[in-house]
Amino acid sequence: MTDTLTDHTANPTAAMIVIGDEILSGRTRDSNMHYLAGELTKAGIDLREVRMIRDDASAIVAAVRALSLTNTHVFTSGGIGPTHDDITADCIAEAFGVPIDIRQDARELLAAHYARSGTELNAARLRMARIPDGAQLIENPVSAAPGFILENVHVMAGVPTVFQAMVASVLPRMTGGKPLMSQTLRIQRGEGDIAGPLGELAARYPDLSIGSYPYQVNGVYGANIVIRGAEGARVDAAMAELGTFFPE
Amino acid sequence: MTDTLTDHTANPTAAMIVIGDEILSGRTRDSNMHYLAGELTKAGIDLREVRMIRDDASAIVAAVRALSLTNTHVFTSGGIGPTHDDITADCIAEAFGVPIDIRQDARELLAAHYARSGTELNAARLRMARIPDGAQLIENPVSAAPGFILENVHVMAGVPTVFQAMVASVLPRMTGGKPLMSQTLRIQRGEGDIAGPLGELAARYPDLSIGSYPYQVNGVYGANIVIRGAEGARVDAAMAELGTFFPE
Repeated sequence: MTDTLTDHTANPTAAMIVIGDEILSGRTRDSNMHYLAGELTKAGIDLREVRMIRDDASAIVAAVRALSLTNTHVFTSGGIGPTHDDITADCIAEAFGVPIDIRQDARELLAAHYARSGTELNAARLRMARIPDGAQLIENPVSAAPGFILENVHVMAGVPTVFQAMVASVLPRMTGGKPLMSQTLRIQRGEGDIAGPLGELAARYPDLSIGSYPYQVNGVYGANIVIRGAEGARVDAAMAELGTFFPE
Repeated sequence: MTDTLTDHTANPTAAMIVIGDEILSGRTRDSNMHYLAGELTKAGIDLREVRMIRDDASAIVAAVRALSLTNTHVFTSGGIGPTHDDITADCIAEAFGVPIDIRQDARELLAAHYARSGTELNAARLRMARIPDGAQLIENPVSAAPGFILENVHVMAGVPTVFQAMVASVLPRMTGGKPLMSQTLRIQRGEGDIAGPLGELAARYPDLSIGSYPYQVNGVYGANIVIRGAEGARVDAAMAELGTFFPE
């Protein structure tokens, strides 16, 4: 149904790449995906796919190439720090076949930041000034080391506070689609009772996304039915019909 | 580094596919990925990639085909309920080119379950007995509707309690690799101070996975350095060297 919906509204699409062994080993629980998903939905941009991959150059390059070709925007999270396992910037450069080196404006951002705390800007920290040719910097108000935008790929930090600040600085520049109207009806019936009428409703409203999200509270089964669409009037009409199926 | 590690231990590999519009819209925060990642690590199975995709047949079929070819095991989460947007079972059948229909043993599981609560086993609930030909059922101790295993793909429910019960029933049957030994050292220095020596250490221990996970507490910067490997003695040796770099 999201398919149909997307075709109808022709919203911009997005994909996300979450990079880091610590996510796949279960050591760290990613929170950036859920945050970005909510922000994109508010902006009317359809998040179509998320890939979580390892700190592995060939995996990163392949994911960037595949997803940047098929989506309006790509967002990456993780791997832009100073340590040996931070290889995202170099992989982005490789994916687009452009050179990468320490860039003066990025170096100055780091120099100013570390000067304030009397910290040495050593070789490791300088790696965070490596930016692929032709990229545009993304400000990092938390710890200075910038993200960057190359082609349609937005390269951002994995640390949630920094990631969120970077999303806040890039999202307003994007042209969003029509934000979705959404209404929810809580129905205290087993999903199996709801499914029949709901399927017929979905068939009559192909332009709407109708989802059923079951819950169980103290042994009582129910489901939250969420109807989303670009046209508020259509959502209202479908929601009204749904209400007649299951009068409280 | 995970690469090197994986090549050395030749552990079985796994990929996960999280299916559901509600995850990508940000409405629901997935918890199954983090749970499975931890369980696989304990079992010595390397989770290489996770894809989160929509309730869209072509996206599901493509992901199942791609990941089942390149991994020892594939796990899916979501889309096996009774509603019109639960299309995972049909997509798995399509991915492997086998027929799918209501299966008698699955039907009996549902019939017994709903008989206990005096609930009608209607057409919608019967959809949950649709199992691809040749699949093996996965028990669902919570709400009866079974998951299934076809080829190397384990199809499980999205509801976290059911997903976890299904993981518990399938994991013990799998031959795991050597579980990783892991040690962590908390170093109260900026990651940029740690990065140099850490890179040299990683270069001297190509068989180990050495990760740096920075934190900031009350303005104080530090990092947890995690060293993982199949050989405990090697992890001990690297950790001892690391300690000499940064005496407290």
